[in-house]
Amino acid sequence: MDNKAEKIIIFDTTLRDGEQSPGAKLNVEEKLAIAKQLARLGVDVIEAGFAFTSPGDFAAVSKIAQTVGTEDGPIICSLARAIKADIEAAAEALKPAVKGRIHTFISTSDIHLEYQLRKSRSEVLAIAEEMVAYAKSFMADVEFSPMDAARSDPEFLYQVLEKTIAAGATTVNIPDTVGYTTPSEFGAIIKGIKDNVPNIDQAIISVHGHNDLGLAVANFLEAVKNGARQLECTINGIGERAGNAALEELVMALHVRRQYFNPFLGHAVDSEEPLTNIDTKQIYKTSRLVSNCTGMLVQPNKAIVGANAFSHESGIHQDGVLKNKLTYEIMDAQLIGLTDNQIVLGKLSGRNAFRSRLKELGFELSDTELNKAFVKFKDIADKKKEITDWDLEAIVNDEILQSPELFRVELVQVSAGSNAKPTATVTLRTPSGEELTDAAIGTGPVDAVYRAINRVVNVPNQLIEFSVQSVTAGIDAIGEVTIRLRYEDRVFSGHAANTDIIVASAQAYVNALNRLYAALQVKAKQEEVIA
Amino acid sequence: MDNKAEKIIIFDTTLRDGEQSPGAKLNVEEKLAIAKQLARLGVDVIEAGFAFTSPGDFAAVSKIAQTVGTEDGPIICSLARAIKADIEAAAEALKPAVKGRIHTFISTSDIHLEYQLRKSRSEVLAIAEEMVAYAKSFMADVEFSPMDAARSDPEFLYQVLEKTIAAGATTVNIPDTVGYTTPSEFGAIIKGIKDNVPNIDQAIISVHGHNDLGLAVANFLEAVKNGARQLECTINGIGERAGNAALEELVMALHVRRQYFNPFLGHAVDSEEPLTNIDTKQIYKTSRLVSNCTGMLVQPNKAIVGANAFSHESGIHQDGVLKNKLTYEIMDAQLIGLTDNQIVLGKLSGRNAFRSRLKELGFELSDTELNKAFVKFKDIADKKKEITDWDLEAIVNDEILQSPELFRVELVQVSAGSNAKPTATVTLRTPSGEELTDAAIGTGPVDAVYRAINRVVNVPNQLIEFSVQSVTAGIDAIGEVTIRLRYEDRVFSGHAANTDIIVASAQAYVNALNRLYAALQVKAKQEEVIA
Repeated sequence: MDNKAEKIIIFDTTLRDGEQSPGAKLNVEEKLAIAKQLARLGVDVIEAGFAFTSPGDFAAVSKIAQTVGTEDGPIICSLARAIKADIEAAAEALKPAVKGRIHTFISTSDIHLEYQLRKSRSEVLAIAEEMVAYAKSFMADVEFSPMDAARSDPEFLYQVLEKTIAAGATTVNIPDTVGYTTPSEFGAIIKGIKDNVPNIDQAIISVHGHNDLGLAVANFLEAVKNGARQLECTINGIGERAGNAALEELVMALHVRRQYFNPFLGHAVDSEEPLTNIDTKQIYKTSRLVSNCTGMLVQPNKAIVGANAFSHESGIHQDGVLKNKLTYEIMDAQLIGLTDNQIVLGKLSGRNAFRSRLKELGFELSDTELNKAFVKFKDIADKKKEITDWDLEAIVNDEILQSPELFRVELVQVSAGSNAKPTATVTLRTPSGEELTDAAIGTGPVDAVYRAINRVVNVPNQLIEFSVQSVTAGIDAIGEVTIRLRYEDRVFSGHAANTDIIVASAQAYVNALNRLYAALQVKAKQEEVIA
Repeated sequence: MDNKAEKIIIFDTTLRDGEQSPGAKLNVEEKLAIAKQLARLGVDVIEAGFAFTSPGDFAAVSKIAQTVGTEDGPIICSLARAIKADIEAAAEALKPAVKGRIHTFISTSDIHLEYQLRKSRSEVLAIAEEMVAYAKSFMADVEFSPMDAARSDPEFLYQVLEKTIAAGATTVNIPDTVGYTTPSEFGAIIKGIKDNVPNIDQAIISVHGHNDLGLAVANFLEAVKNGARQLECTINGIGERAGNAALEELVMALHVRRQYFNPFLGHAVDSEEPLTNIDTKQIYKTSRLVSNCTGMLVQPNKAIVGANAFSHESGIHQDGVLKNKLTYEIMDAQLIGLTDNQIVLGKLSGRNAFRSRLKELGFELSDTELNKAFVKFKDIADKKKEITDWDLEAIVNDEILQSPELFRVELVQVSAGSNAKPTATVTLRTPSGEELTDAAIGTGPVDAVYRAINRVVNVPNQLIEFSVQSVTAGIDAIGEVTIRLRYEDRVFSGHAANTDIIVASAQAYVNALNRLYAALQVKAKQEEVIA
């Protein structure tokens, strides 16, 4: 192997930029579960959050730093504006990590300087330099991003990069913040930086981009050809607006087309050396976990992880694949861990079989969690003959990734139909332990359940999204319900799985309400402190 | 304006390649509704189907040719293998169109020649030439595609293109059939063709591609820079496997970045001349119609048409947008027709208000359709205070885009809950006019309804997907249910909208069963003929 042969660093920002998807808010437990899976997937860096923004974000970064940021684990990173308090919070939250990174940023485009920052170029230059040095005083690994770099004046950009590298930035990240550039343009920006920043060899060039015009992945691959060595991406491409570059598409493009990319990374054309550290067999599972936790559905025609990505419908294609797979397939579904959805357990399976299959699937449950999940498993196995791996994942995710259990659903009962007034009765246990029951009619059974719950909980909110997906094929499949509700300017999501979608709907709604309720309690406490 | 200034031809293949998405099968009425909307959207060419493959496909192409292929309308195209019978069927189906096009194809890559066609290069060359000439004997507008062009030997590809252009092909289409190429490679293929095919100036260069690595849109834009003038794309990027290049992403990239693309098309850099004939304000509505009819959901982070494409979650971004939209937005949501979802009608609105609002929304209903839709509207307005444009679209699509009504749902009644055995009663009217009622228990209310329906209909099938999406925000929203079921090797989808998701589920299931039942009847007839 060539000594100069390089690898691409995969920087996952699912927990930071991905979580900025409207409605994708995650709680600490969900973030931790995703971070553990990202570590199994083999990402090099996890951007775990933006520690300064809220106590919840701080706690999540800190918890992930402690649990996942081990000797063998990935680098754990926190975002921080180029402001002392932000950098201090990031440094503090990252303390438990063996390898920590502070990622600080400030805008460099004239439009951001004029309208948002209201600062001159020289002011921004001074702040960037000073704040990178400040971050460096806490830890060796510092990343700097000139926000909206793709729309910045190149000469000013070069200057900012030179100064921040001199101040100690070990990675400089070039964001296409508004998703505006095309591949050739983005490649040229990276080449310009390589050619014009005198000390660029002392830092890794990273890229960050948004998919507003559908070009994020192509932009990144062109950046790699021009010298970028770190890619900031998210699972399923979630993130602000149309999202970020999708990790799975980048990794698989670099894998499937490695003969094309090899020379750009100093490898021999025919080298079989992987170009990233990703264990591609973990891709599909990670995609499902992130989709479940965030409530961000993956469309069937999504590249790599969509339900149709590996199916052939046309007779001509099917015929070709039967004759020789390579006629119409450029990769094997097993490469991303999409194996047959095997039936593994049934009604008679015991706790040991359940535990050991979960372990094989990569779940590490505490005894309490295992007990709760096993009760749910038995309940479902009573109703549904065959329990598959995907069912197991739904059961476990549903049990261990819960929102704070403030209100608890004790009973749901509905009657509905084309000639009936849909009517629901619900019993909830309140945070103070009371059991309250109420009934309501609605436009349908779900509406009736929600109205009955609203009568008990009495927190005004607007339901903005309701969706159900079946976990597996078959008429007795488990349904996963995702709902999002709005309270003032904030969106809260809830998720639940059950063979009965009305029961799942009630549970998902109460999960979202519990998050809303918890947020209201935090707010009330803060107002108490201020007052 | 420069005389040499060119436009990009938008060739929509939603009804052909898009319909090849597993489970996205459309009936003739749905295809016609989509074709009409594509004409309103302003596409230049509609590939309406593959006339030879089935009587249904033939009928759809013929009906669209007749109804949408008017003097002012788009070119209507049918796909045809390079086989006489295919070309004859295409020519026959296209007869009613004022402007028709036959699109014939044969593979040119060595892997397809060896394993699928089992023919030599010289045989393929002769067939291509002969079949293009044969197509030309029926109509002047002939398109030829060398399938798997991106993996074909360039010299052979040039030869095939030269001969087929000489034989009369007016468009030559370069497919990246397996979604394998990267933008620079695809651009280089187009440049190679431009430079090496002597008579290339006598044909339009077109491109077709798949999104397996997430690169289809970027590949096309690079092809435009190198001389491609027709883009084959689909609404929402649906199609085989990970789908085709998305029309909305291509059109908006060419629109938002027209200063960048202008010079490649002979326009002055600052020209405001549109680069396509697309009315961008029709994009969002077309996207919803295609998603509803095909049952192919659009993920929230889908570029341009996803629910989040124009929302900002981060406080920093929101702050920027308030100060100046351009800080974080490169296009306005109104450009794609995404206006506020206004409340337009209520319980007291009359038939005239209903009819005139539908007209404004672009629906042209027959009197019978209008009457049916109005009854449904009144029914929903009774339950739901505010009826928005999106509700109206759901009502109308649900009423006019029905599958053949063989079985009809007369009554649905369920009782379910966390401590109850979910039980359903259904009454169906059979194709022969009988009313049959049966009941069943299930793992949930939807399962119980499906089991009860199965007892009546008695056509064994496997439910492979079930999903519900709310049409609008609010607790009393209409739910749109999409289901897909498998019978032997075929997938049938059903779709229904109702404020009661249990009723909608029953209706969607019966719609899918009706399609399955119709297919079984056709098959039975064919077997009769053969026997």
